[in-house]
Formats: sequence, structure tokens, C-alpha cells
Amino acid sequence: MESPSKLSTDISGRLKRDAHGLVAAVVQEHDTGEVLMLAWMNDEALHRTLSTGRATYFSRSRQRLWVKGETSGNTQRVMSVALDCDGDAVLLRVRQTGPACHTGTRTCFTGRELPLGEES
Amino acid sequence: MESPSKLSTDISGRLKRDAHGLVAAVVQEHDTGEVLMLAWMNDEALHRTLSTGRATYFSRSRQRLWVKGETSGNTQRVMSVALDCDGDAVLLRVRQTGPACHTGTRTCFTGRELPLGEES
Repeated sequence: MESPSKLSTDISGRLKRDAHGLVAAVVQEHDTGEVLMLAWMNDEALHRTLSTGRATYFSRSRQRLWVKGETSGNTQRVMSVALDCDGDAVLLRVRQTGPACHTGTRTCFTGRELPLGEES
Repeated sequence: MESPSKLSTDISGRLKRDAHGLVAAVVQEHDTGEVLMLAWMNDEALHRTLSTGRATYFSRSRQRLWVKGETSGNTQRVMSVALDCDGDAVLLRVRQTGPACHTGTRTCFTGRELPLGEES
């Protein structure tokens, strides 16, 4: 069992978690502004991200914490974290090592554009 | 009652919706790369966004579609939409008129940074 999160009560009180206790994490490359990926955080993931400076998320499929790059080496050094106005999302600005996406593309959105103006 | 969404079956089949039928929408200013906000879309919101070029979301609190800026005038002209690798998030690049946040700040993350390295 994980022990309760050490996230400060000040921050914890501002989070608006979903039914699974998670907030969305938008991850942006600090230097270029590229949006790299969307991930999810529970309180402990946010606490570890803030305290270690290494981006740490909660995997919904594996139901556990993961440090980004812990197996791939494609780590994210966290430069800043901001909470949004209604507390259900954080924005991480990071320095990404290697590709951000597990498929090997630079971002999780690379090459996946949807047709605009073609839907009838 | 809303009629069923006209989202193409090709796109619809790639979406991995949450329990409420939604995917996350990360919204980025096209010209500056700033991340403006995080919102949510159901199939119909995505269809309308793609077909009209006006950012349209699903409000979880009001349980209805909303065209961004329909009351405030702070609209978003959509320049591109991309789906992420696992289909649970889209990235919109937009041209934002006025502040993106309903609180009046330029983005929903403006001035809401969390302390990094201070959590023990």
C-alpha cells in the first residue's frame, strides 16, 4: 500500500479531481512551446513531481505511479508547474530528453492531424 | 434531445472516451505556443469544431455543448486539430480573441504557478 500523499494541504485543497482522484497534466516543452503529451496525476504524482523535479504521472492502465522515462530514458526535467483556474488541470513545462511519445514520435500529437473543414 | 453525432466513423473509431464519453482538449495559441486552457469534448463537440472551425466544447458542469466565446466574445478560431497516440486527447491550435480564461487572465494557467522543489 502507498502511504497517504505528502502533497501540501494548500495545494491539495485547490485540486478538483475526477472520480478516480486524478487531474489532467498538459506537458509542454519549455524551450519550444511544443505540447508533448497529456498525462494524469493523483496527489502523490503531483507531490513527487514538485519535490523531485522529475515528471511523475499516474498510469490509468497500469494503476500505478510512473516516472516518465524510467524505462525508456526519455525523461522530463520539470521547469515549472501551474494549476489552472478550476483546479482540474496542471501545466508542466519540461525539458524533454528524446522523443516524448512511447511510439517514438517527438510528441504524442505528431503526424496525427484531423481534417479541418471536411466534416459535413 | 441531441441527434447522434455526425462525427465520421473513421475519427469516432479512434477516440478513447472516458466514462462520460469525453476526451480532453488541450488548447494552444497558434502564434505564440502558449497553452491557453484544458477543456472537454464529446463526439458532437469535436464534429462541430472540425466542421465549423470554431472551438466547441462540452461543459461538464452545465452538461451541454458550448461554443467558446458565445457569450464573452472571446472566441477561438481553430487552425489545426490533432489526436494523440492513444486517442484520449486532442490538441487544438487556435487564434484566441481576448483572454482565454473566464477569470479574465490571458490563459487559465496565468499566475497560478505551484512551488517547485519546496515540497518536502
